[in-house]
Amino acid sequence: MTLAILVNGATPKDLNNALPANDRGFHYGDGVFETALLDQGSVRFLEAHLERLYSGCAKLNIVPPPREQLLAEISTVTAKLRSGVLKIILSRGIANTRGYRPSNDSTATRIVAMYAAPYSAQARLLHLRWCETRLGRNARLAGIKHLNRLEQVLAQSEWDDPSIEEGLMLDTEGELVCGTSSNVFIARDGLLLTPDLRFCGVRGVMRGQVLRAAGEVGISVSEEPLWPNDVDSADEIFLTNAVHGIRSVASLENRHWDRFEVAGTLKAALKL
Amino acid sequence: MTLAILVNGATPKDLNNALPANDRGFHYGDGVFETALLDQGSVRFLEAHLERLYSGCAKLNIVPPPREQLLAEISTVTAKLRSGVLKIILSRGIANTRGYRPSNDSTATRIVAMYAAPYSAQARLLHLRWCETRLGRNARLAGIKHLNRLEQVLAQSEWDDPSIEEGLMLDTEGELVCGTSSNVFIARDGLLLTPDLRFCGVRGVMRGQVLRAAGEVGISVSEEPLWPNDVDSADEIFLTNAVHGIRSVASLENRHWDRFEVAGTLKAALKL
Repeated sequence: MTLAILVNGATPKDLNNALPANDRGFHYGDGVFETALLDQGSVRFLEAHLERLYSGCAKLNIVPPPREQLLAEISTVTAKLRSGVLKIILSRGIANTRGYRPSNDSTATRIVAMYAAPYSAQARLLHLRWCETRLGRNARLAGIKHLNRLEQVLAQSEWDDPSIEEGLMLDTEGELVCGTSSNVFIARDGLLLTPDLRFCGVRGVMRGQVLRAAGEVGISVSEEPLWPNDVDSADEIFLTNAVHGIRSVASLENRHWDRFEVAGTLKAALKL
Repeated sequence: MTLAILVNGATPKDLNNALPANDRGFHYGDGVFETALLDQGSVRFLEAHLERLYSGCAKLNIVPPPREQLLAEISTVTAKLRSGVLKIILSRGIANTRGYRPSNDSTATRIVAMYAAPYSAQARLLHLRWCETRLGRNARLAGIKHLNRLEQVLAQSEWDDPSIEEGLMLDTEGELVCGTSSNVFIARDGLLLTPDLRFCGVRGVMRGQVLRAAGEVGISVSEEPLWPNDVDSADEIFLTNAVHGIRSVASLENRHWDRFEVAGTLKAALKL
């Protein structure tokens, strides 16, 4: 599934012996990542992905590589490809001493890799479930696409019915947050709403594009605390994700939807 | 600092090219670990460490290696050493497909390593601070020593005054949980109390030994929800950690203690 990969700028001789044994990414999940779509030879919304990556590094006080270096490596791994999924990982780097405390002199470990495109990145109507796994609240980590993803791993482990594409997640207080690997939008009474992610969840790049595009096409949009009953009362619901774009939802357990206009308008506005 | 290391049973030729590029431990923090003390040539409380390790794997549905294999590898890395810190990491293994969902056929990646002993494993009186970083609540992950440790990394980043040895952490609702790498006990009116860790925190091996030993020497002990005012009103406070054992606390910001009898009794009972 790995089409091309650079670890710290070089192609590993052996993919299975490629990372430092004492890397803080492995020991603590101490790092950040991005997943972007390569489409027709170019990385969709690359600027926005890099902006979030560097913003995450700043929040975690990880020293990122120069932007030019990362851009050059992205060019290298995407050079011979037309489509696929670009993944960038930056960890804080090798631990010089044992223990959680980061040292000030570590150099980020970086992976820049291309993986095969998902078998269907096409829009289709989704069927969802509610996940039992809840997201813990932590305002300091909210929004960051960091490497601590056990909650998402547990949530996706909950089902294996291939007809269910995604699960919606609540935080531990019962507030709606996101899908396991997507953000969620609901349209109701002409207003577009999405969770504000003040306590948890990833501030998705496609979510950001939708917020921006909605404003441009005159759709009123608001980031605010939402709850399961906001989903029940939605006229329309769709998910966003950098790889899959905007996907309309047809059902969530026993609730069904047959309106997809807002998603359609936004897909057209964003040329998805 | 690495004295000996085995990755999947073999000594890496190059410590910096030792782990799989697509390991789920690195990508998601999808794994568990143990840190134990090698003292006078034997691993202290090894059985309890292995029990927690295997219990963590069961909770996360990670298939662990056979116990005999792990024991043989521990013997190998500790063979020529009298003291140090043993670290065992088990990740879910190499990702066969992209995405959070684990496949059922992955083989755990295992690191068994010895690091130099901390410069002072001796008991001394500790000076503490309160951490600003809070712990998110997630009952499904509570107690497990998993690889999602960004909260602890952020907490230990808060201070660099070497006279402050540890920071106490609250959860997002303000409940007392633990130190950044220790559990906490308070003694008050003849009763020993420790947070019940129902929402977060690691169920420490030394914590377990203290709970057991307290019962054996006739100290009444209770695991229950505790709050900062329980610390303020404590007659005595001490921290537990597998490497450092039991350490009495002399101060927490402006609060000072001069009673250390309960810690002394338990250290004697546990032969620390």
